[in-house]
Order: sequence, then C-alpha cells, then structure tokens
Amino acid sequence: MEKKRGVDVRVYDIILKKRRGYELSKDEIDFLITGFTSGDIPDYQMSAWLMAVFFQGMSVEETCNLTMAMVHSGESVDLSHIRDVKVDKHSTGGVGDKTTLVLAPLVAACGVPVAKMSGRGLGHTGGTLDKLESIPGFCVDLPKDEFIKAVNTIGIAVVGQTASIAPADKKLYALRDVTATVDSIPLIAGSICSKKLACGADAIVFDVKTGKGAFMKSEDDALCLAELMVDIVRGAGKRGAAVVSDMNQPLGYAVGNSLEVMEAIDTLRGEGPEDLRELCLSLGSLMLVLGGKAKNTEEARISLVNALKTGAALSKFADLISNQGGDVRVIDAADAVLPSARCLEAVPSVQSGYISEIDAEKIGVASMILGAGRRTKDDTIDPAAGIIVLKKLGDKVDEGEPLVMLHTNNWDTLEPAAELVMSSYKVSQDKPVVPQLIKQVIED
Amino acid sequence: MEKKRGVDVRVYDIILKKRRGYELSKDEIDFLITGFTSGDIPDYQMSAWLMAVFFQGMSVEETCNLTMAMVHSGESVDLSHIRDVKVDKHSTGGVGDKTTLVLAPLVAACGVPVAKMSGRGLGHTGGTLDKLESIPGFCVDLPKDEFIKAVNTIGIAVVGQTASIAPADKKLYALRDVTATVDSIPLIAGSICSKKLACGADAIVFDVKTGKGAFMKSEDDALCLAELMVDIVRGAGKRGAAVVSDMNQPLGYAVGNSLEVMEAIDTLRGEGPEDLRELCLSLGSLMLVLGGKAKNTEEARISLVNALKTGAALSKFADLISNQGGDVRVIDAADAVLPSARCLEAVPSVQSGYISEIDAEKIGVASMILGAGRRTKDDTIDPAAGIIVLKKLGDKVDEGEPLVMLHTNNWDTLEPAAELVMSSYKVSQDKPVVPQLIKQVIED
Repeated sequence: MEKKRGVDVRVYDIILKKRRGYELSKDEIDFLITGFTSGDIPDYQMSAWLMAVFFQGMSVEETCNLTMAMVHSGESVDLSHIRDVKVDKHSTGGVGDKTTLVLAPLVAACGVPVAKMSGRGLGHTGGTLDKLESIPGFCVDLPKDEFIKAVNTIGIAVVGQTASIAPADKKLYALRDVTATVDSIPLIAGSICSKKLACGADAIVFDVKTGKGAFMKSEDDALCLAELMVDIVRGAGKRGAAVVSDMNQPLGYAVGNSLEVMEAIDTLRGEGPEDLRELCLSLGSLMLVLGGKAKNTEEARISLVNALKTGAALSKFADLISNQGGDVRVIDAADAVLPSARCLEAVPSVQSGYISEIDAEKIGVASMILGAGRRTKDDTIDPAAGIIVLKKLGDKVDEGEPLVMLHTNNWDTLEPAAELVMSSYKVSQDKPVVPQLIKQVIED
Repeated sequence: MEKKRGVDVRVYDIILKKRRGYELSKDEIDFLITGFTSGDIPDYQMSAWLMAVFFQGMSVEETCNLTMAMVHSGESVDLSHIRDVKVDKHSTGGVGDKTTLVLAPLVAACGVPVAKMSGRGLGHTGGTLDKLESIPGFCVDLPKDEFIKAVNTIGIAVVGQTASIAPADKKLYALRDVTATVDSIPLIAGSICSKKLACGADAIVFDVKTGKGAFMKSEDDALCLAELMVDIVRGAGKRGAAVVSDMNQPLGYAVGNSLEVMEAIDTLRGEGPEDLRELCLSLGSLMLVLGGKAKNTEEARISLVNALKTGAALSKFADLISNQGGDVRVIDAADAVLPSARCLEAVPSVQSGYISEIDAEKIGVASMILGAGRRTKDDTIDPAAGIIVLKKLGDKVDEGEPLVMLHTNNWDTLEPAAELVMSSYKVSQDKPVVPQLIKQVIED
C-alpha cells in the first residue's frame, strides 16, 4: 500500500482536495471514475473519497460531472429510433408505490412514448418488474429491437435494465453500501441520474418521497435532492421536473406484487385510491408537458382524466400486457388470473380512536416477511403475498376492527408480520391532521 | 462486496456511528483493530472509518482504547529486568533534530536508564539510527538480552525497533498514508503512543514540534496533540510530560547524519548551538523528574548542566558507542573518523539585511537531495551529505555572505539543493522577532 505509482499519488491529492472542501474539476472526477471502474483505483482510496464527499458535499457542477462520468462508464441506450419525445419517470421508492403501473399506460394513452427500463426491487417490496411478473406470462426480457418496435407501434414497453448500464454506479453503490456512505444527497442524485440518463430518455420526471416510510426523512432533504436531480438532467442537456410527495403512510391500500397490480388496474379504470390517483395525475401532468403533449399542467390533467374516463389508459395497459406475453384477462378478472394467497388474517386494532401514525417502513418489512420482498438478492418473491391496508391516517377505528389484512402462503409468517403491523399503528383520541400528499412541485 | 457476513455488518454500524459523531466503545474499537490486523476487516471499510474519524474526531477515552488495541496487536517489550524507572522520549520530528543523540547520554549520565528503540527516518533527513550508523562500526541490532544487559551495566543502549511492535499501527499508517487521513490528531497520538507503550517505558516525554518545518503547523494543534499524548500515557497507567517546541527554522546548525553527530558531540562537550542545548535541558529536566532522579525541573536542570560540565554526559556517549561496536575515537577526532563529503559549496545571500524566514521543510528537502535522506524506503543514505546552516532567524547578513554550506558526494545535486535553499530564506530590512524555542511545557 505504498504510494509509488502515479495513479495513487493523484488519487491521494483528489481525496485531500475534497477532504479540505474544494471543488473537483471535471478532469479529476473523470480520472477517479474511470480508474475506479477499470480497477486501477483501489476500493480503499475510493471509500475514503466517498466519506470525504459525505462530509464536504459536492457542488451542482461536480455532481453533474460525476453523473456524466458514470453514464460514460458503460453503454448508453440509443432510443433515437423512437419517434417523439421520450419521457421517463423515477421514484425514490416507497411502500405501496405502484405508480409506474398506472402512469406508464396512462401517459402512453395520451401520446407520450413510454420506453421504460426498470430495476428489480431490493427493498422490502418488489420493484416494477416483480409486480408485472405477477401477471402470468408477462415477460420483461425483450430484445432491443422488439423493445423499440413495441414503443413505435403500441407506444409502450417495460423491460429490465441491462447490466451494461452505468457499471461505475453499480460498483460505487456496492462500496457505499458497506462503508456507510449511501445517504449523501449528491451521491444519491448522481446514482439515480446516471442510470436514467444512460437509458436514453429526453426528459425525466422525479418523484422524491419524504416521510417516515421514505429514504429521505426530511422534506428539506427531499426537496434538495429533487432540485439537484432536475439540475443534473438539465446540465446534461435534457429536460426535467419533479414532485416531492408524502410517504408517511403506504401509498394506496395494496402492498405486495399481485395486490398492487389489482389496485393499479382499479385506478386505471377510474376507481382505486384517491392518493394513488392524485399522485399519478400530478406526475403524469409533468410528463405530458415535458413530452410536448400539453401546453401546461392544467391542460395535461384534463387529458389524463379523460384517458381514465374513456378507458384509453386501461386499454393501453392491456396492450402492454398482451404485447409482452402476459395473460390479458387480468384486466377484467384479476382475481381469477393473478396468484392469490392461501392464508389471510386480519390484524385488529386494540383501541378505538383515529389513526394518527402508520410507520410505512414497518408495513413494508411486514410485507417482506409475508413473502412479497427480498431480504437478499437471491431470495424469491411470492407474488401473492402482501398486505391490504384497511385504515389510513385520519381514519376512525373501533377496538377490534381490522387495521390491515395479511396475505401469505406461509402460515409461520403471520405472527411476526402481525406484530410488526400492530407496532406500526398509533391511535389517538383526537382526529389528526393528515399530511398533504403533494408537498412540492418543480415544473420544467 | 455484499453485506452478508456478520463482521461486515458490525463494521458498517461502527463506521456509521463514528460518521454520526458518537463515541465508540472499547469493545467496538477492539473489534475494529483486531479484525483489521487479522485481515477480516477489509481496507475499504477501514479507510471509510478513518475518514469519518478525521471529520468527527475521537474522545480521549476512544483514543486511549485505540492506542491500547494497537499495543495489544503485537509484541510488547518486557523491560522489567531493567532496574529503575525507564523514561523514553519521543519527538514528532523536525529538520536538524539530533536531540536524542544528546539527551540519551545526558540523562543516562544523571542516572535515568535509557533503553531506546528507534525507528528509521522516512522523512527528509535520517532518523536516530541512521545518524548513529554514520559512526563507523556502530551496530543498532543488539539481541534482546544484550540490550537489557547494556542498560543494566552502562545505563544506555539504542537499538532498532522490531517489526513485531504494534503491527496494527503499521498497517493502519500505510492505509492512512494513501487515503489522506494522516493528519488527524487522535490518529497521530494513537500511532505514536502505541509504539512507545509497546516498547516498555514507564514514563514518556514528548517533544511536539510546531511551525513551518513541523508536521503541526499551528501551535494550538501541537498543544492539543501534546496534551492528548500525555493523557493517553496516563490512561495506560504510565507517567507522561511534554514540551511544545519551535520548528520555524532548523534546530542547531547541522542537518545530515554525520554532521549532526558532530554537533551532538559538541553539545555534549558543553559547546554546540544554544537552541539545541536549551531543548535538551528542557526535555532532560522532565525526564529526570519522571525518572525520580530530581524533585523538580530546577533541580534536574542543575544536574544536567553539571553532567555537561564535568564531561560525564560525553563520557556516557563514548560508553554507548564503544559498547555497540562504534569507533569511539569519534569523540575527540570526529572530523577524522566520520565520513566527510567531497563536494562543498556555499549558498550566498542575494541581499543584505536580517534573516526573517527560513523554510525548514525546504532545508530538509535540500538535504535529502544532497543524499542525507530517503525518498523511498529502499533508498540508501549518504552519511556525509547534508547542510550546515550558517545564518539563522534574526541574524544579520551581507549580500554575498554564505547562508549555508552544502555537503555532498554528488556534484549534480548541488544546483537543485542550492536553489531550494535560496528560496527557503527571506531577508528583511528590519530585525524580526525570533520565535521562542520552548512554547509550552506540560509537566507531570
């Protein structure tokens, strides 16, 4: 570990510069990311640099340069064969967040081409791919030409992200994950934006969650991350917008893969939970404006509401499913087509009053325990497992009345999941103030 | 790099705890140092932890625990067969610092047993071992029983440190050296104290240098380091004291191995530079008090001055040299015995006035260029090479009058060394205030 090679000395100087709080140049960041990706720069220097970044931060320009260096570390998807402005959406993730399932067909129905590449869920609950795969037959591995063709013909395709996208980010994230340097706003922004930009979108709308069930606990941090990501996307010559939304309770009622697909279908039919619908309309409005399909968000919202009302959005979801090999009967007979759980159990309230708190993170963990999520990368998911939330913030509840319904195929998981759910609910005598769903909007 | 093993997760939690500014427990620090030494904890987690320590610091208790964990990572030298209180001295290092050569025989002459284990110099100039080895025949590799026997018979021995002392510190230092985490006061204190404590002393006196030529540029930092090291030593059940001394110019006049030996002999004879003599008397007084050979520093100083006057100190140096195989004629005929350089060159002043600044670090580097120090671990040292400083801070100088005399056996080094020396001197028209040599004293 002696400093003898030129690379070592230069990395040392870069670590020191950042440790002292100075701004790194584009050259320095490129050198760092290229060397780290190729293996010339060792993990132990990189992790010291990451910790220095945690404490000293990065300017918008540095973060843009970091993002682009990570984009260039791998393959970029060329979507130029898709006509029209491609608008992508990214959510920082939350419990019960099935927005993509609703939004993708909804905006596609309004003329915005959806060429979506998603990752797998590695949190408490499954990701978009896992949710779609709960539909029998649905295939997320389309060859590139079929992917492009699908978007050009039916206007929508959802596939898995290839491993060649932003490999620097993958390697850096793995290092951050074991060195307590994940929760740095510029590093988070760079990680998210590098993947999204490498996937070839022309514009990106970000949904940054905040609250007890989100990674960003404070609204200030969430807003800061949202603004930074929009700045990065603009710095890269693309267009961006963002919403900061509440994650102090699960979104909608369903948590778990096939349960969330059912709720998404309900929402596309114009039914479904109010909060999920509202978030989809907010995000969708921004997407339509960025995609040039509406002059402003008011006009966009009218189109979206109309697409829900006429059934165009639901029909676009059917197109997506049938084009990717899924059983399209799910649209009208979800109960019959989707896997359902053998063991159901209600978790009753131990007191009467108003729901004043729901720890969404605990609901997510309970859902994972029931089988809906992965503990490690190699775990398999039970598509039928999950939770239906029956009481949300501000709802009145009587003693003994069910708070949630647990769904699983494994009896042994009911008790620990129920305990976690019990401890996640708080009941008060006074009706609490329910947090606003949409906290901030950053328009284009 | 997945978090799957228990060790990884625990290390992660410890990094996070320190990153958040909390105090680590003894158990946590022991776990970290033991695991790192054995190789169970990877470098990349350790370097993230080191950077977190750089930013969040460590309490005195944490630093004591870190120190003891590093002491216990290897062998401890058992000096219990040496009668009397063993007092060691440590200096943070400076240019022209030959204090040990004077101090060791001086305090030994006053009855304090000197069982000294030194490291090699890896800075601009040689270390104590390199300096002693410029005396023909001097051997620094005594077997342990001969080392103990020497201290018990003649009261003094100086040998090289074995590799089995504090291996955790060695490994940690190598990592700090390439991750820009060297200059953290608790990490410096832990590193120094772990080696000293493992070497078996009952009491330690620290000489912390401050100023342009020192590692600690600010006096506040130097005092902080001195206090912390005294606290650590006391926490380990030993006694400690410290001096913060000036290093805004070289100590004494000689820089380079055999040149410094000559100056040390002069000083032991009661001659030699005033600053070197004063520093040795200050450090020596503290050592005599800690060793129980004087009631207070005033009484100690009288003994030391007496040992210089009577020749007892110089005679003790002769004992050391002859016992370790060195040519003892060096005492009376240093010029004839010590290697001397073939090429000498004076560096003249380009203007008249008073010396207002000497960049001691540059003088050190110039001396290294001439051959007195090592650039890398494998470089060999030319014992004859070095610099005699002729003008010190506050001295009057005329244009053309020599500032220093360069000594080398390699003509090619004269020009770059001379240039560096020129740029290290500043001459002003007004007589500058010369910085005080002894800035702070922390008594027992």
